Amino acid sequence: MTRLLIRDVDLVDAQGKLQKAQCIAIDGTAIASVGEAEPADFVADETLDGTDLLAMPAYFNAHCHAAMTLERGWAEDLPFERWLNERVWVAESALQEEDVYWGAALAACEMIRAGTVGFADHYFWMDQVAQVVAESGMKALLAWCWFGKDTGPEAGGITLATTERFVERWRGAADGRIRTCLGPHSPYMCEPEALKRVVAAAERLGVGIHLHLSESREQVATSLKRYGRSPVAHLAALGVLGLPTLAAHCSVLSEDDVKILARQRVMVAHTPKTYLKLAMEMPPLQRLLDAKVRVALGTDGPASNADLNLLEVMRLTGLVQKSAQGKAEAMPIATLQRMASRNGAHALGFSSSGRLAVGAAADLVLLDTRGTHWVPRHDLAASAVYASHPGDVIHVMCDGRFLMRDRVLLTLDEERIRAEAERRAFRLVGSPMRRVRAYQP
Amino acid sequence: MTRLLIRDVDLVDAQGKLQKAQCIAIDGTAIASVGEAEPADFVADETLDGTDLLAMPAYFNAHCHAAMTLERGWAEDLPFERWLNERVWVAESALQEEDVYWGAALAACEMIRAGTVGFADHYFWMDQVAQVVAESGMKALLAWCWFGKDTGPEAGGITLATTERFVERWRGAADGRIRTCLGPHSPYMCEPEALKRVVAAAERLGVGIHLHLSESREQVATSLKRYGRSPVAHLAALGVLGLPTLAAHCSVLSEDDVKILARQRVMVAHTPKTYLKLAMEMPPLQRLLDAKVRVALGTDGPASNADLNLLEVMRLTGLVQKSAQGKAEAMPIATLQRMASRNGAHALGFSSSGRLAVGAAADLVLLDTRGTHWVPRHDLAASAVYASHPGDVIHVMCDGRFLMRDRVLLTLDEERIRAEAERRAFRLVGSPMRRVRAYQP
Repeated sequence: MTRLLIRDVDLVDAQGKLQKAQCIAIDGTAIASVGEAEPADFVADETLDGTDLLAMPAYFNAHCHAAMTLERGWAEDLPFERWLNERVWVAESALQEEDVYWGAALAACEMIRAGTVGFADHYFWMDQVAQVVAESGMKALLAWCWFGKDTGPEAGGITLATTERFVERWRGAADGRIRTCLGPHSPYMCEPEALKRVVAAAERLGVGIHLHLSESREQVATSLKRYGRSPVAHLAALGVLGLPTLAAHCSVLSEDDVKILARQRVMVAHTPKTYLKLAMEMPPLQRLLDAKVRVALGTDGPASNADLNLLEVMRLTGLVQKSAQGKAEAMPIATLQRMASRNGAHALGFSSSGRLAVGAAADLVLLDTRGTHWVPRHDLAASAVYASHPGDVIHVMCDGRFLMRDRVLLTLDEERIRAEAERRAFRLVGSPMRRVRAYQP
Repeated sequence: MTRLLIRDVDLVDAQGKLQKAQCIAIDGTAIASVGEAEPADFVADETLDGTDLLAMPAYFNAHCHAAMTLERGWAEDLPFERWLNERVWVAESALQEEDVYWGAALAACEMIRAGTVGFADHYFWMDQVAQVVAESGMKALLAWCWFGKDTGPEAGGITLATTERFVERWRGAADGRIRTCLGPHSPYMCEPEALKRVVAAAERLGVGIHLHLSESREQVATSLKRYGRSPVAHLAALGVLGLPTLAAHCSVLSEDDVKILARQRVMVAHTPKTYLKLAMEMPPLQRLLDAKVRVALGTDGPASNADLNLLEVMRLTGLVQKSAQGKAEAMPIATLQRMASRNGAHALGFSSSGRLAVGAAADLVLLDTRGTHWVPRHDLAASAVYASHPGDVIHVMCDGRFLMRDRVLLTLDEERIRAEAERRAFRLVGSPMRRVRAYQP
């Protein structure tokens, strides 16, 4: 294992405070020391000059559908239902297993270039995504999406059992960089009996779930009408939230819903670019934080929001909340950073990631602060949130291994992935329209 | 003058439509031809391969305070009044004339790197900004801010006459790249008598004005109380809006105000990142567009919004409007592009800029579309708005002259500007607190 010393680097510490000219020693997969002085007994195999660089804990994307990169830019400026029924589900009905590999590989390139080392993915043919994670050196929590009905081969052949076998096949794989869980789509797609089967299976396997929850007023109204309970209360009553739960969106919540999410220690994934671009409800983020609900940040799929850039998601989260709350002091920088790194890592189950501290996993992003948009460097943490872009990301490391160095991806063949993904994407959207299901909130 | 041919380039035409593999011929300062075929009779001095590049009309920043780059990151997460009274005005009270040169030069570097070739600046010691514009090869509409009271040397010595002389000194300078106008701060800072003096001076000089207008409910309430009219109606009644007017913000507007803005052909500068970050009112943009008010996009000063990136301003304008209107189809991509380029150019008075068409000024930005965040290239115009970042900007041209080529700035000494601006910025914020005025809406 390599012993690396990064010298003279500025960093944002676990308290969100900027520390200038620090040394970070990395021994194998973990951080061995952080401080002003070089560690006395540390013999480095290699030294990296951190002058003019800012080290941050790397970012974790808590909700995405990576292979939907293939649909980027194919469903613009459309109302939500047309976006879904006429575009997304049409392309997905033509999806073949190997497409998912190339779509996810494209996503991995893009995420690493924006400083993200881990992602929670929720999609189909997840062995393909797991393969990408293994090859890329990233970390992931992977769930095979199940719509609540076992289907025959003519409709994809996805059964709950398929998704359980996936959980077992890949859990702990790639030196522990891959974690798995079950992926029931949502309480509006899955009937109560289906959700009970998920709970039993998850308990048997000893894993959690990743699902979509309470995305719209229509979903809440339907749930109240059908079950007499909000989507959150409905899941709680079924025992679903007793599982370790990563719930994307949680956009429409009553006071009781917030209490349930806090009590059940549900991890919420907040994906503001999608809410804005598809004109969906904006979740009550401050109420969640005030109630001590743990919130991480995500991009959602690139069909809905165009990209996979957590730097921008942090920024949008801050901007939108300051505006929505009418308080320029709301959602301070350290909170945004923590949601994008530490909370994201926790949401994926990588509890030793997400901070620059002794013993933590060596998951780092190094940003070049020489760009004129960072100058004058009054507050590097602020610029990292409000002025940075992926072009500033110069090195990215996961478990002590460089995934990108000097802006070159080291684990993925970017040229080949770009060409193959684009070829397949053009095939998908050129396929005949074949509606597979209609959205019913 | 150089005759340049750009071959095999994709572009977004004046109708907002993507055209693949085009040739753009540039003769001196203007576009000589655009089309699939190379022009028959055009002998190029130089040819540029446009493969994998997207040509767009360059961007025009319709409202900024360029030298406020010096305060970037120095006033984070503060309520508006503390932001202004405890930070911005304190730093500005220590401002020296030459600081403005270096702050504006830093801004020019940043704007060019983000594809912006022109800006409407509203600040102090504007000869310094004009000097930067002349040297940088950019275009600008420059106004010396006047608070409505002539002050003696002990308070900066700014009189309306100072700002008039500036208008005359620089109008049409730098081969017509510099335009000038008067810069009364706002109807809440300037008394009616002061505004009447501005109207008389502007008419005498034959120029327009650039000012701040109707930024908050408090300003509207004060105006109604003091003058019996909204800020917009008050300016109209004083004859101010009879001048060619560039009005920043216009955030709080009655139906009558919108009609006045349309009738008086006021150009509105919309700066959404500031509205979000400082939790200010979001202007009723759709109502303005529906009433045929001309709207351009701006960044405002980097003290309020951290950067000078019109790519992001386009994106935020789209995202915020889709969300605010509850319509994912609102604010289509072509509208956003037009506001950032053509409308911006018109707002600054450069009516031949802002489109890729024969006879138009050769003001272009060329974006590298090979980044994985652009792939698959289903809709390059969409990616330019929703996934691009300044790291994608590879060449920038103004009046047929490269300001940046292969990501190298050709007209400005970026290294020296970065160092000098930072040194001065650190002096400013290290200066003793000296409150010069308190914000009174």
